[in-house]
Amino acid sequence: MHSPPLAGGTAGPAALRPLLDVVLDALHQGAKTRSGPLPAGGPHLVTRRVQAAAPTVLPDHGTGAEEALTTLVRALAEGAADPAEPHCAAHLHTPPLALATAADLAAAALNPSLDSWDQAPAASALEHLVTQALAHQIWPHGDALITTGGTESNQLALLLAREHHGPVQVVCGAHTHHSIHRATWLLGLPSPIVVPAPTGTTDLTALAATLAAPHPHPLLVVATAGTTDTGAIDPLPAIADLCATHRAELHIDAAYGGPLLFSDRHRPRLAGLERADTVTLDLHKLGWQPVAAGVLAVADPQRLTALGHTADYLNADDDTDAGLPDLLGRSLRTTRRPDALKIAVTLRALGRDGLAHLIDRVCAHAATLAQLIDQHPQLELYAPPTISTVLFRPHDADDTTVAHIRRTLLTDGTAVLGRARADGRLWLKATLLNPHLTPHDLTTLLTATLSTTPTPPSAPSTPARPTIPSTTPAPPTEGTPR
Amino acid sequence: MHSPPLAGGTAGPAALRPLLDVVLDALHQGAKTRSGPLPAGGPHLVTRRVQAAAPTVLPDHGTGAEEALTTLVRALAEGAADPAEPHCAAHLHTPPLALATAADLAAAALNPSLDSWDQAPAASALEHLVTQALAHQIWPHGDALITTGGTESNQLALLLAREHHGPVQVVCGAHTHHSIHRATWLLGLPSPIVVPAPTGTTDLTALAATLAAPHPHPLLVVATAGTTDTGAIDPLPAIADLCATHRAELHIDAAYGGPLLFSDRHRPRLAGLERADTVTLDLHKLGWQPVAAGVLAVADPQRLTALGHTADYLNADDDTDAGLPDLLGRSLRTTRRPDALKIAVTLRALGRDGLAHLIDRVCAHAATLAQLIDQHPQLELYAPPTISTVLFRPHDADDTTVAHIRRTLLTDGTAVLGRARADGRLWLKATLLNPHLTPHDLTTLLTATLSTTPTPPSAPSTPARPTIPSTTPAPPTEGTPR
Repeated sequence: MHSPPLAGGTAGPAALRPLLDVVLDALHQGAKTRSGPLPAGGPHLVTRRVQAAAPTVLPDHGTGAEEALTTLVRALAEGAADPAEPHCAAHLHTPPLALATAADLAAAALNPSLDSWDQAPAASALEHLVTQALAHQIWPHGDALITTGGTESNQLALLLAREHHGPVQVVCGAHTHHSIHRATWLLGLPSPIVVPAPTGTTDLTALAATLAAPHPHPLLVVATAGTTDTGAIDPLPAIADLCATHRAELHIDAAYGGPLLFSDRHRPRLAGLERADTVTLDLHKLGWQPVAAGVLAVADPQRLTALGHTADYLNADDDTDAGLPDLLGRSLRTTRRPDALKIAVTLRALGRDGLAHLIDRVCAHAATLAQLIDQHPQLELYAPPTISTVLFRPHDADDTTVAHIRRTLLTDGTAVLGRARADGRLWLKATLLNPHLTPHDLTTLLTATLSTTPTPPSAPSTPARPTIPSTTPAPPTEGTPR
Repeated sequence: MHSPPLAGGTAGPAALRPLLDVVLDALHQGAKTRSGPLPAGGPHLVTRRVQAAAPTVLPDHGTGAEEALTTLVRALAEGAADPAEPHCAAHLHTPPLALATAADLAAAALNPSLDSWDQAPAASALEHLVTQALAHQIWPHGDALITTGGTESNQLALLLAREHHGPVQVVCGAHTHHSIHRATWLLGLPSPIVVPAPTGTTDLTALAATLAAPHPHPLLVVATAGTTDTGAIDPLPAIADLCATHRAELHIDAAYGGPLLFSDRHRPRLAGLERADTVTLDLHKLGWQPVAAGVLAVADPQRLTALGHTADYLNADDDTDAGLPDLLGRSLRTTRRPDALKIAVTLRALGRDGLAHLIDRVCAHAATLAQLIDQHPQLELYAPPTISTVLFRPHDADDTTVAHIRRTLLTDGTAVLGRARADGRLWLKATLLNPHLTPHDLTTLLTATLSTTPTPPSAPSTPARPTIPSTTPAPPTEGTPR
């Protein structure tokens, strides 16, 4: 029996090439067969198809690389909710750039692990450059860690506060990401004090009252720059002022909104970000990276010493004294993939203006979609979008109907829309992250949604197929075909 | 300005193809330039080269995909410690299989996120099949979660115990992985009680005495199946007996040794694994996966309900009631890459016998290396290897010299060996995970090590170049060229 070839070494690329051809063919065939944003049929049918493709996960004898790749990659692609498809727009679930995806292959092939220098000589140096560059977007002397995503970044922010102050009392808005609550549970911190956010952002009066009240523990305020539900950005300067007055720490979860920093047009919305102690960023959202590409940025690099940790086989004192970098304190993980590579390739290939172009485009798409909705007689717009999230619902639909429309679109394989509760009601949510969308895509997304909307009881039983007004505002167009 | 192409959709594969060619060329050129297990020159020189390649991480204007991929992937490959190179054998840092690496590309291109069904219809179904298959290697009714690695798996195991029992007192051997200590700190648990492990495994008499003593909290014993330092496997049945007697929970960290389950020859060494409550596995070690491919297996699937968590946009009750799978409790992360795909492709392509072949080979390599060392007049063997880790040192070398030899090999770019303290002394560590090694590779690894060994003060100042005995035992050979 022969051992299958490895991905690394001088021979790795030649071994990878034919296998990558198999993968690309399977991805293409799978996408063609799916022919839309997600497979029709709902969970039961998709699961049955995957089971049929892989009835035995671990056979006694292998089927070989080509068969296994063809079968399983095809099954994955056929059954994907693919964010590169125009009508897949539910979540902060980005369609990755081809160049970032290609870079990620190199990370997998070389398999450096960032827990010690002797597993990642160049990768650790590159990660250092990337984290410095990202932190310096906020503070001239900040630092940053690469994480698995906003959830881990938020968890680390709370951990750093705990290690600096002892048990901290988190204060956050009702709109704060669930990972903050989960992190307090994980870390054994008191449950967060939740301040109302009736308009989708932290209520400043309520926050001021909360901070002014006596508390047994030091306070950590969590603000959000780009909520998951609406993309709203908290009034960061006012919150920073309150934190300064009441000597509270400030963490800003900018997992979604953070990359607005790269856009001259949108950067001003993040004014106040630099007054935080810690900031969560996440380039697998508005940064077009394959998962994972999370970041935790810290104003004071000294705070990171709390993560310092010694394991003799990775960072013995005499090795560190002799000049081998001590990397174990750069994460709570031990073995760690170099997610910095794809980020570095993206930043360099696109540059600041290239990133700004993408960000400006998806924000413009959202503005256009909002206008289409606002002008539509059958649809209600929640509010003009802050970033690239648009909430809407058919007039007269109740919450149950809204939830049903969303599930019907999913089951029919027509569109992947999200859901969000705002203003006490349930809304359909379109999170636009695909820079290649066309005006036509936005129009047909709304048409598909309306086609799925049940007829209200008072309406005629055979309504005309709803249409979008013919005079739609023109979103920015682009020369490249999708 | 045009937006760069996406990796997904029907057009993604055609956009990826030329970029992957660039990556493969850069990987090949980088490996050729490096020409060995790691670059010579040490941290300072490697860092300067990376800085020279990427003086500006985020330029105002981009350099384009081809330039960025060429420059940064080449820099990464030139500066890699590549585990596919025969003399890169320090850590549980595996050389990934080309087929697993190719599969991982599909995960990145489609970018499913496993926190909700509508981001990962087929991927979540596939993950379910993979986790079931892996858990069933241990228990007929177990379950498993995919993690970022052994560290997260260990952390989750302690968290599940905490949620089931309240604060638990961890009891572990002195040889236990550092992540257990870090997890108790993270989770706010009492520091572990450390039982001696004078021979590299848990001392049973000391463990029995510890378990018999009164404790304010329920006990969680952590045993290890494959230590990082020596690959030793704890006496699992005896430890399980003690846990049963004293009503202690049992977690077994089998991050390294777990895949011995796939080998008929080596599986018996894991007898007792099935008596654990939770087991850490990690297929980016003895499973040839690109990072990350961690697993936490649990005997009782009900235990996982402790991770249950609701976020209205991901798993609202009415969506769950309507049949959309609730996936948020399958991890502490939110956004989550489908690492199950590469694992599934590997299991299917190789089958059980193909995996066993790889495992048996690296264990045989270790046995051969140990014999070579044992027969060598200048070298001392720590002990016959249990899995694929071999500790050795030159006779008469003190700890300082051993540490110096290792760093010299690194700085010279000659070999990547690890270090481990055992029996009160410091040893060089070879962790053999490359199934393509040849007898010649093992011989030259020892020759290189001896060439780096400083002459003892009492020896002549110009010793003959040390050589390996010409009558070396023949390790298993294989028909394929490396």
